Amino acid sequence: MDLTEHCIHSDVLAQGDLLTVKRDKVQLANGNTSQREYVTHPGAVVIVPILTNGNIVLERQFRYPLHQVFIELPAGKIDPNEDVLTTGQRELLEETGYSASDWVKLGIQHPCIGYSNEVIHIFLARNLSAGNSKRDADELLEVFELSLDDCLNMAVSGKITDSKTIVALFLVEKYLHQHAQSL
Amino acid sequence: MDLTEHCIHSDVLAQGDLLTVKRDKVQLANGNTSQREYVTHPGAVVIVPILTNGNIVLERQFRYPLHQVFIELPAGKIDPNEDVLTTGQRELLEETGYSASDWVKLGIQHPCIGYSNEVIHIFLARNLSAGNSKRDADELLEVFELSLDDCLNMAVSGKITDSKTIVALFLVEKYLHQHAQSL
Repeated sequence: MDLTEHCIHSDVLAQGDLLTVKRDKVQLANGNTSQREYVTHPGAVVIVPILTNGNIVLERQFRYPLHQVFIELPAGKIDPNEDVLTTGQRELLEETGYSASDWVKLGIQHPCIGYSNEVIHIFLARNLSAGNSKRDADELLEVFELSLDDCLNMAVSGKITDSKTIVALFLVEKYLHQHAQSL
Repeated sequence: MDLTEHCIHSDVLAQGDLLTVKRDKVQLANGNTSQREYVTHPGAVVIVPILTNGNIVLERQFRYPLHQVFIELPAGKIDPNEDVLTTGQRELLEETGYSASDWVKLGIQHPCIGYSNEVIHIFLARNLSAGNSKRDADELLEVFELSLDDCLNMAVSGKITDSKTIVALFLVEKYLHQHAQSL
């Protein structure tokens, strides 16, 4: 079955400083027309930084849309024309002060397929060196570390609910399990 | 460290038929002011339906913002004043035709904490009975089934990239593992 929807007409519903919202008139696969509203996003990178002691570097950050502090992995938006590995290295350094010499791409995730075109690239970062963070003036966060088991348990118990973080932890658990078996 | 941001002023940047986008002027924890743009969302429910043979009921659905067919779990938005269990039962029936007599709440996830207040409630649904789906006129999708192992492998290999689906599969794997151990 062909499920493809085709754009008939595209409008910018709102142009914010961060968000662009579009409203497209579309032709559905069954011939009907409908409209789709969605946010356009430059894409992002989430990093799972693993320290030599096996701990994961995490952040506590206040997220205004939900008025709540979240425990999440370092992450950030891709700058124009920026390679995703460069984004990962830049965001890890800016937010946590860490640099890493060993980077493994674990895949991608789509956080919000109903109303955003955002894609998040997922990296494992190892061989970390501590340095100074370079946060933006309005980027206030706390950096801390936890074992992978503790992270996974917090995802199960509901203390970590950020989807991008849980997906990245899931992929790291599978990757490390597979890697340990192949040694 | 107090990371709380306080609203100084809130504007509706765009009022679409589906999306409402807000732009708030906020006071940061360090005293600076900044602005936050975000989508308001009624919340959603994602369901992991497990058949008697152990297979998971999945969907293929075209998602316009990414112009791509996704493999995902049944899910849908909460109607006004609707209990989230009712949403889960309604969406499972509407999209797949299945009813379930055994529902377990596995938790919640926040798919897009940077620019949406959406929360997704996660349910496991068992003891399924097949019936007729009641899809909306513009809701075209294919229903199929796969083993949990196949689902997890597809998440690892990148064939499933929808974050809400991967998080729900992660929680189901942990739940079933824990449950099997306690028998």
